[in-house]
Amino acid sequence: MRDMIIDLIKEKKYSSVRNEILKMKSVDIAELISELDASDSLIVFRLLPKDLAVEVFAYLHNEKQKEIISSITDKEIQHIMDELYFDDMIDFLEEMPATVVNKILKNTKEDERKLINQFLNYPENCAGSLMTIEYLSLKKEMTLKEALNHIKATGFDKETIYTCYVIDANRKLQGTISLRKLVTGDESKTVEEMMNTDIIYVTTHDDQERVAHLFKKYDLIAIPVVDKENRLIGIITIDDIIDVIDQENTEDFQKMAGMEPSEEAYLETKTFTLAKHRITWLLILMVSATFTGGIIRSFEDVLESVVVLAAFIPMLMDTAGNAGSQSSTLMIRGLALEQIKLKDFTKVIWKELKIGSIVGIVLSLFNLIRIYYFEKIDMKIGLVVAVTLYFTVVLAKLLGGVLPMAARKLKLDPALMAGPLITTIVDALALVVYFTMARWLLGV
Amino acid sequence: MRDMIIDLIKEKKYSSVRNEILKMKSVDIAELISELDASDSLIVFRLLPKDLAVEVFAYLHNEKQKEIISSITDKEIQHIMDELYFDDMIDFLEEMPATVVNKILKNTKEDERKLINQFLNYPENCAGSLMTIEYLSLKKEMTLKEALNHIKATGFDKETIYTCYVIDANRKLQGTISLRKLVTGDESKTVEEMMNTDIIYVTTHDDQERVAHLFKKYDLIAIPVVDKENRLIGIITIDDIIDVIDQENTEDFQKMAGMEPSEEAYLETKTFTLAKHRITWLLILMVSATFTGGIIRSFEDVLESVVVLAAFIPMLMDTAGNAGSQSSTLMIRGLALEQIKLKDFTKVIWKELKIGSIVGIVLSLFNLIRIYYFEKIDMKIGLVVAVTLYFTVVLAKLLGGVLPMAARKLKLDPALMAGPLITTIVDALALVVYFTMARWLLGV
Repeated sequence: MRDMIIDLIKEKKYSSVRNEILKMKSVDIAELISELDASDSLIVFRLLPKDLAVEVFAYLHNEKQKEIISSITDKEIQHIMDELYFDDMIDFLEEMPATVVNKILKNTKEDERKLINQFLNYPENCAGSLMTIEYLSLKKEMTLKEALNHIKATGFDKETIYTCYVIDANRKLQGTISLRKLVTGDESKTVEEMMNTDIIYVTTHDDQERVAHLFKKYDLIAIPVVDKENRLIGIITIDDIIDVIDQENTEDFQKMAGMEPSEEAYLETKTFTLAKHRITWLLILMVSATFTGGIIRSFEDVLESVVVLAAFIPMLMDTAGNAGSQSSTLMIRGLALEQIKLKDFTKVIWKELKIGSIVGIVLSLFNLIRIYYFEKIDMKIGLVVAVTLYFTVVLAKLLGGVLPMAARKLKLDPALMAGPLITTIVDALALVVYFTMARWLLGV
Repeated sequence: MRDMIIDLIKEKKYSSVRNEILKMKSVDIAELISELDASDSLIVFRLLPKDLAVEVFAYLHNEKQKEIISSITDKEIQHIMDELYFDDMIDFLEEMPATVVNKILKNTKEDERKLINQFLNYPENCAGSLMTIEYLSLKKEMTLKEALNHIKATGFDKETIYTCYVIDANRKLQGTISLRKLVTGDESKTVEEMMNTDIIYVTTHDDQERVAHLFKKYDLIAIPVVDKENRLIGIITIDDIIDVIDQENTEDFQKMAGMEPSEEAYLETKTFTLAKHRITWLLILMVSATFTGGIIRSFEDVLESVVVLAAFIPMLMDTAGNAGSQSSTLMIRGLALEQIKLKDFTKVIWKELKIGSIVGIVLSLFNLIRIYYFEKIDMKIGLVVAVTLYFTVVLAKLLGGVLPMAARKLKLDPALMAGPLITTIVDALALVVYFTMARWLLGV
């Protein structure tokens, strides 16, 4: 598809390009434009009918949006701004440099400018930054018939009209009513009689993770957002929440692999930024690992007399790290999905202790047999390795269970207590157990 | 809340229990019941009005559902089955032992039984297993007014009526029309004139990950599911897709930490099952790590002459593993979200090479200074460590970038190429580089 379009552009067959593109959905056109170079993408964008151009624009990623905005006329920019859904416009403006934002705001009416500034000021990752203002409000005195007529008159532009919000003269939220009830209910009844007053809502400064949790728990499609005075400010719709879920998961993946989280996609992030995000934790973990090295140095005499002990260090370290990562991953995930709560602490400890014992015994026996029968190494060394392995696995499982919960208790992010950090801690413990066992059992 | 209810039950103040519970939302009641013991939870469940009981039942987890089903009468079971949404019923039946399923099926009408059996036979994780049959179908000849009247007459029970599906006499899917268009459109027009014929749909055997991807890409709230003959079989709604997204992410987290994936929540999984899920990969990785140990043994002479080299093994191994995990995590996540595609291979390699160089140089210099100035160890040993670190980090970054993409290319799950596996591979490489460098630079 992309190659065909490029060929058609080269041959300057613009009307064929247009015909091909008009067969596509807006998000697919956006994907195509993202893959073209600056001049070709501008040509394709300019071939789009005005309203489709706005839809496509909303789907482009920030870099491409910037590129296009810098190449089109003020009038074209104005049209895009007028037609974009409010939340898409805010998302776009948030990523633009101040000069572009000012240029755009200069051309908007004063009350809209005020609203935009208010929305731009909501902290990232809070409910306010996810809101849109395209929702339908009703008055409780309306009959269902009047409400439906009101929707017919005004509803075309709304991003979602499936839930309508009932507000009073001060914009205070009084209830919600679904379009389904409006359509299927007795049309002479009033909105007040039919509306749901047990409303699930959030405030502008609530964290987006909490908002996503409410959507999941109550199977919502949209949620109203109110300010401190309970006045309706906007709504958040499910499509933006799915993005939040993906984003929060990506953040957890990144943190759990010892990186600073970033919202930008990998290919769109600069090399230097990626390197910076990775280096801090690598340095911290590297310095911690030198303590582990210190442990080896303090047992140098043991190692000197039985050099073969060194050969089992990688296996012990890797297994300890892996065993700890498994537990901490399940904890972090369980805490994130609220399947595990702080009050389950003792249950978790007890469970991990049992799992650690089972796993530890299996791995230890496996090793003992392998070392003694297959590698024909001294039984005593096999015992040292097996006993160390058992204790390390149990310890690793316990720490993997405890540390993420401790982090939650201390209001830190449990995702920080993941594989890399736990590996470093458990590695040190494994070596202390190993050499102490060796000194004791081998008498060196 | 829970404690108060338990107290009220103990005091046999059942009407107060009922009053308290009726103030709550169904999902919260389900959460409460899950926390009670068998007899208390049955009491609370029986206090619920019939229809609320069904709603609450749908939210309970499988173990609790089984517990309740085994304690209530056939008539009560019958009522729950009649009133459950079809997809919730299928979810429930899928988890029940065959005896329970047969008992329930015996009491259903023949055509419903056939349908249930058909649904139970869809493989897990495919579109068919997520479907519900509660959707609204229209004929294209209807006017919008007729369509709305049809919805008023039949629409109350449908799980979602916001998108209606237009089918012909053979149930072939011809188009979709949103309730919004029905309400806001000219009521004398026909459905055919207003419907959307460019339909996004899936077939019963499509993978659930693909379905979720379509929801995200096109901001859908529901998607129709058709069979091979393009006949409409059911629809999938967004709330079930959010569960799929969470489930797929949990699976990735589990695989990336070297565990067999499991859908059950941690606290509801048996200790033995959890141990089993963890042990396979631990064994595989442990055996691989013994190869790493073999490398140390083959360089025993080097280690014997310069025992201090052993002290840097943990730091080198940990850093190599962490550097590799960082890259592979970003790759796996990028591939899962379709932000990185196979055709980006060379871009990724080049980027990781650059990142690896930057990170490698910083870490190496840091180490060189630390070893020489602070630990006062021979400069040559510092050099060996620094050079090894540089090469290992670059190698780790490259492998972390390449292996997940190679897995995708081979139609394997990229999530398998995560931290634990890459750590094992990179550790071995790190040690080979380390001892070769030592032999060469230190002349042992």
